Amino acid sequence: MSQFNETDKLAVNTLRLLSAELPSAANSGHPGAPLGMSPAAHVLWTRFLRANPKNADWINRDRFVLSNGHAVAMLYSLLHLAGYDYSIEDLKQFRQLGSKTPGHPEYELEGVEVTTGPLGQGVSNAVGLAIAQANLAATYNKPGFTLSDNYTYTFLGDGCLQEGVSSEACSLAGHLELGNLIAIYDDNKITIDGNTKVSFTEDVLKRYEAYGWEILKVDNGDEDLDAIYNAILQAKKSNKPTIIQNRTTIGYGSLKAGSHDVHGSPLSADDMAQMKVKFGFDPNTHFAVPQEVYDLYQQRLTTPGMEANKQWDALFAEYQKKFPELGSELARRLKCELPANWDSFLPTYTPKDSALATRKLSEMCLQSIHNALPEMVGGSADLTPSNLTRWKEAVDFQPPSSGLGDYSGKYIRYGIREHAMGAILNGIAAFGANYRPYSGTFLNFVAYAAGAVRLSALSGHPITWVATHDSIGVGEDGPTHQPIETLAHFRAMPNLHVWRPADGNEVSAAYKCAMESQHSPNMLALTRQNLPHLAGSSIEKALKGGYVIEDVANPDIIFVATGSEVSLSIDAAKILAAQNIKSRIVSMPDFLSFDRQPEEYRKSVLPDGVPILSVEVLTTFGWGKYSHQHIGLDRFGASGKAPEVFKYFGFSPDVVADKAMKTVAFYKGKEVVSPLSKPF
Amino acid sequence: MSQFNETDKLAVNTLRLLSAELPSAANSGHPGAPLGMSPAAHVLWTRFLRANPKNADWINRDRFVLSNGHAVAMLYSLLHLAGYDYSIEDLKQFRQLGSKTPGHPEYELEGVEVTTGPLGQGVSNAVGLAIAQANLAATYNKPGFTLSDNYTYTFLGDGCLQEGVSSEACSLAGHLELGNLIAIYDDNKITIDGNTKVSFTEDVLKRYEAYGWEILKVDNGDEDLDAIYNAILQAKKSNKPTIIQNRTTIGYGSLKAGSHDVHGSPLSADDMAQMKVKFGFDPNTHFAVPQEVYDLYQQRLTTPGMEANKQWDALFAEYQKKFPELGSELARRLKCELPANWDSFLPTYTPKDSALATRKLSEMCLQSIHNALPEMVGGSADLTPSNLTRWKEAVDFQPPSSGLGDYSGKYIRYGIREHAMGAILNGIAAFGANYRPYSGTFLNFVAYAAGAVRLSALSGHPITWVATHDSIGVGEDGPTHQPIETLAHFRAMPNLHVWRPADGNEVSAAYKCAMESQHSPNMLALTRQNLPHLAGSSIEKALKGGYVIEDVANPDIIFVATGSEVSLSIDAAKILAAQNIKSRIVSMPDFLSFDRQPEEYRKSVLPDGVPILSVEVLTTFGWGKYSHQHIGLDRFGASGKAPEVFKYFGFSPDVVADKAMKTVAFYKGKEVVSPLSKPF
Repeated sequence: MSQFNETDKLAVNTLRLLSAELPSAANSGHPGAPLGMSPAAHVLWTRFLRANPKNADWINRDRFVLSNGHAVAMLYSLLHLAGYDYSIEDLKQFRQLGSKTPGHPEYELEGVEVTTGPLGQGVSNAVGLAIAQANLAATYNKPGFTLSDNYTYTFLGDGCLQEGVSSEACSLAGHLELGNLIAIYDDNKITIDGNTKVSFTEDVLKRYEAYGWEILKVDNGDEDLDAIYNAILQAKKSNKPTIIQNRTTIGYGSLKAGSHDVHGSPLSADDMAQMKVKFGFDPNTHFAVPQEVYDLYQQRLTTPGMEANKQWDALFAEYQKKFPELGSELARRLKCELPANWDSFLPTYTPKDSALATRKLSEMCLQSIHNALPEMVGGSADLTPSNLTRWKEAVDFQPPSSGLGDYSGKYIRYGIREHAMGAILNGIAAFGANYRPYSGTFLNFVAYAAGAVRLSALSGHPITWVATHDSIGVGEDGPTHQPIETLAHFRAMPNLHVWRPADGNEVSAAYKCAMESQHSPNMLALTRQNLPHLAGSSIEKALKGGYVIEDVANPDIIFVATGSEVSLSIDAAKILAAQNIKSRIVSMPDFLSFDRQPEEYRKSVLPDGVPILSVEVLTTFGWGKYSHQHIGLDRFGASGKAPEVFKYFGFSPDVVADKAMKTVAFYKGKEVVSPLSKPF
Repeated sequence: MSQFNETDKLAVNTLRLLSAELPSAANSGHPGAPLGMSPAAHVLWTRFLRANPKNADWINRDRFVLSNGHAVAMLYSLLHLAGYDYSIEDLKQFRQLGSKTPGHPEYELEGVEVTTGPLGQGVSNAVGLAIAQANLAATYNKPGFTLSDNYTYTFLGDGCLQEGVSSEACSLAGHLELGNLIAIYDDNKITIDGNTKVSFTEDVLKRYEAYGWEILKVDNGDEDLDAIYNAILQAKKSNKPTIIQNRTTIGYGSLKAGSHDVHGSPLSADDMAQMKVKFGFDPNTHFAVPQEVYDLYQQRLTTPGMEANKQWDALFAEYQKKFPELGSELARRLKCELPANWDSFLPTYTPKDSALATRKLSEMCLQSIHNALPEMVGGSADLTPSNLTRWKEAVDFQPPSSGLGDYSGKYIRYGIREHAMGAILNGIAAFGANYRPYSGTFLNFVAYAAGAVRLSALSGHPITWVATHDSIGVGEDGPTHQPIETLAHFRAMPNLHVWRPADGNEVSAAYKCAMESQHSPNMLALTRQNLPHLAGSSIEKALKGGYVIEDVANPDIIFVATGSEVSLSIDAAKILAAQNIKSRIVSMPDFLSFDRQPEEYRKSVLPDGVPILSVEVLTTFGWGKYSHQHIGLDRFGASGKAPEVFKYFGFSPDVVADKAMKTVAFYKGKEVVSPLSKPF
C-alpha cells in the first residue's frame, strides 16, 4: 500500500510550482533541478526529516544539505512550507539585494545548514556534519540518553559528483563507515554543456560501492514516491553511508523538460502557465499554496519536530542531573561558550627558552590545551609527523570496526585529501556544539583547498588550518613545496585570520584567536626551522595582529616583518644601530587582527613620518598596505639546504641592513605618509 | 620462459641502490618509493619505453610521468643509466642549491616531462599528454605515415590516488577512452601517517573500473619482473586507459622495509651497507653501476630509441614531401613557432562599435583566430554557454565510439572538473608540438584549480584560462560566485599573466600575449556585463600591461583601473573635469606585462608627483604596488541585480569622483613619491 495520497501529490506539485515561481519573479535563477527534485524533497521532508522550524538550531535536528545549491528556490519553498521564517513575500524577493532569499544558500540564513553553490562542497560538508554527529553521540550519549542520533541528508547532482572534492570526502566517508549520512543523487543526465554523455559516463554507483557505500536506485524519481520512501528507509538501516541514485527529469512539467535550457534560466510565462494547468493549478495565480499542503507540512514535519525537540529538552534536563559533569560541558558547548580560563593553559616563553620551530610550538600548544577544550577536533592530510598536529594521548576518530580508534576519538586521519579536509572542517563547524576543528598540511598545499577555505571565510566558520613548512625554509623539497603567493592569496580573502607567528608567544596568541573566533576562520603559517623567542613578544600584544616589538625614540626606519623575518629584522637593526641608524621593529603576525584595531592604535604602530620597510620571505604582493618598500621573494624558490637558500635570496642580516640603509637615504628629506593614512 | 635474466636482476638492484644513495648523499630525500618501484621502472624502461636520450624532446617518444614526484631519486638514476645528460657527479649533488638534480622533478630538466611533487598532478598531466597524443595522431597521421603513436606511462602512489584532481582527470580519461595511457600504481600500503588502513580502504581498482579503465594486477611487484612485463604488454593492447595495481614493499631491501619510516628520510649508513651486501654489492662503494647494467640500458633503450628517432625523421621527411601543407604545418609547430601573421586575425574596435561583454569579445576573438592556429585546443568545465569558449565550427574532442566528435576535435568537454582541467592543460602544453590549450570556467572557480595553476606558472606552460564572470557583475548568483580575492591570489603568483581587459582591443591584446607566450601562462578575467569600447585603447598599447588611456597636461590625479572600472574611472574623471580637477586615466590590464616593461616606461605612466588612485571592484589587496589610495571591495559580495550591487558598493561615477577629490585634497602640498620609485 502506498504511503502517499492525493495531498502528497498536490504538495509535490505545489513545491514544484512554487520553486519555479521564484526564478520567474526574479527573472534569474534555476528552475530545472527543483522541478526534478521536488518529489524526493517532499518525501524526505514530510516522512523523515526531524527538524523544529521554531528552533532551527536544535542540536539533534536532522541536517539537510542542498549540495547543488543552485536549486535553492526549492529550499526556500520547503522552508516556507515547513514554517520557518520565510514568508511568501520573502520568496517574491528572491535574488534581490538585501533580501532573505539570495541566489544561493547562505549559512547565516535560518534553516540553511551550509553555504552551497560552488559544486562538490555541500556533500563534503555533509561528511563533516556526519562526523560531528558521530563524535557528539560517542562522547555524550549514555544508555537511555540518546542525546544525538540525527541523520545528515544531502541532495547532489552530477556537478557535485564530478568535482574532486566530493570524491575525496566520499572515499573518506566510506572508510569511516558513516551510516548517518544519506546522499540522494539527482540523476537527470543533464549539465550545462548538455547531456552527461559529453563528459560524465562513469558508473557512479559502482564508484561509490568501491568507496564502501551502500548503493540504492530509484528508477522513477519523478513520480514514484513510494520507491523514494523505501530507499530512504533502507538507507537508514545501513551502517554505511548510502547514496541513492534517483532518476529524474530536469525541468519536469516544463515544455523544456529534459533539456539543459531549463537549468539556469527562468521559465517563460507561457511555460509557467501550461505547467500550472498540467498540475491542476490556476494559470493566473502566482505563488499559490493550497491550505491542505500547509496542513500536511504542519502535521508531518512542524508538529512532530517541535514535539521531538521538547522531548529532547526534557531528556537533556534529566541527563544534566544524572551526568552533571558531561551535562554541564555539553550545555556550555551548546551555548557556544569556551570553558572559563581555558587560555590559562596557553604556554608562554621568554628569550631564555630554547629556539624551536613554530610547528613544534604549535604541537606544544595543542598538547597544553586539548584537555581544556573537548570541542577541539584535530587532524592532518597525511602529514601528522611533519605538521605535528597530534597531541600524545589523542585517540583517532575511526569506525570501531577498524580497531584503530572509535567515534569519540578527536584526531581525524584525512588521508591525502586537502580539499575534502577543508570542506569537512566547515561541516564540523557548521554542526554546532561549539566544535573547533583544525587540520594540518603544508602551507603550500592549503591552495588545493582554496575552494573550501573561501567558504570558511564567507560563512565565518571558526575552523583552523595548521599550515606548516611556511616558506623557502622548507629547503630541499624545493619550489613545488615552497609557498610564495600563498599568504597574499589568503590575506586578500575577507574575514580570514592568517597568522605567521614569530615565536612561542605569538603561536599561543594565534591559538587564542583561533579558538575564541566565533565568526572567522584562522590559518597558522608555521616554520619547519627553529626560531628564537623574542624579548618583546607577548600573547596580549600579538593578539592585536601587529605591534612594536623593539623600539627606540625617533626611529629612522620601521621594519615590519612576520614569522622567521622578525628575528632577522632585529639582527639587521643591530647592524644599523652600529651606524647610528635607529630602527623600530614591528611584528605583524596577523593582518586581519591588526586591521580590526582602532585607527589610533594602528597609526601609533605605523605612523606618518618614518619610512616603513617590510621583510617577509614570500611575495611582496600586498605589503603596500603597510610599508613603503618591501623585501620579499617575487619568484619561485629553489631546492637546497634551507640556510643556503635563505642566503641565496638575500635573507641575511647584512643584505637586509643594506637595503634598509638605502631606504633611509631614499626618504631623507621627503615627507613620508604612512600607508595607513587615508583620505576616505 | 622468463623475459629476464641475471643482468636484469642486477640492474634492478643497481637502480635500487643508486636511488637510495642520492638521499643518503644529500641527507635529505625519499628512498622508500624508489626501492619498491625499481622493478617496474626497470621493466618499463628497458622493455617498453621508446625514448632518445640524445634528443630528449623527440615528439614521438613515450612519456614517462613520475606522479609521486618525491621518488625523483629513481628518475634521476634512470636518466643517468639511459644516457641522458646526468652524470654520477650530478646525482651526488642531489637536492643541492643550483644542481641539475633538485628535490622534485622539474619540467625544465632534460628527460623530465612535467613538474611533480604536489600529489595528484602528474597522473592528471598524463591525461593531458595522452589527449595531446591522440589529437596529434588524429590530425597528422596518414596511412603509412604513423607520425604519432607514443604511449604515456605514469607511476603513481596512494597519495596521487587520494587527491581529487586525479579522480576528476581519470574519470575523464575513462570517458575519452584514452588507450594510450598506462598508469602503474605503486600499491605499498604505506603513507606518511602509517598504514593506508588509517584512511584509504576503498577498492581502487573497482573505482577505476567504474571510470571505464582496464584494470590489471601484479601480486609481487618486488620480484616478479615477468608479471610486470605481461601486465604492461596487456595494457598496451587495450583501447581503454589501464591501471596496473603493482603490489610492492616500500623500502624493499632496507631494514625499515614496509614501514613509513623509510618514506621520507635517508637510510642510515648501516642500513645502506647491509642492503648492498644483500644485493651482492660492495658495502664500501657508493654510486656503483656495473658496466653490464650500462650496457643493458644502452642496448635495450638508448640504441633502439636513437634508431627509432632516426627512422621517424626519415618518415617525416617523406611525409613533408607527400603532404606539403600538413607537413610544413607540423614542422612549424615542432619548432614552436606560430604561423606568420596569425595576429592579423585579431579583431580591433573603435568606440563606435557596440558595447559588449568581454566574454563575448573573447568568443569573437576565438572565432577569428582559430583557423590560423591549429595548435589551439579549447574547452570548458561545463560552462560553455556561459564562458563562450567554443567557436561555431568546433568539433568536440571525443572518442569516435561516442558519436559526438573524434580525436582530431579541438574542443574538450572537461565536465565539472576545474582542477583536472588545469592539470590537463599543463599536460597538453608539456606534450610539445606548440599546443596552446585554453579552458573556460568562472573566475571564482579557477580557485578550485589553484594547485594546477601554480604548476603552470612554475613550469612556464603557455596555457590560458578564460575566466568569465569576473566580479560582482555576476549579480544574482551572489557571493559564492563573485570573486574578491581571486585576482590578488593570481597576481601574486610569479610568472602568471592575469589579464582583466577593459574592452575589445584589450581582449585581443590578451589573446596575442596568451598565444605568443612561450614560458608563461595567461589568465583572462572577463565580464558577464557589457562594456563600451574606449577611444584610447589599442592592442599595441595594452600589450605593455599598463598604459595611459586618457591624458591631460599636469594631471592632479591619476586613476589606475582595470576591466569594467576603466570606463567607470573615465566617467568619474568627467565629473572632476567639471570642477577643474585634471585626471590621467591609466588602464592596467596585466600587472606582469607592465612589470616587464623598462623602468623608464613604467615611470612615465605612473610618475612621481601625482597621487594615484586605483579603482577595481575586487580586493584592494596588492594595489599598493601601483597606487597610493585604493577603491575596491574588501568584503564578500551580495546577491542582487548587477547594477544595483555595483551601486550598493559605491562603484558609480559620483562616488568614485568624490573619493578622488578627497584624494587630491589629501595630497595637496605633499611630496608624492610614486610606488614605482625604489631605493633598491
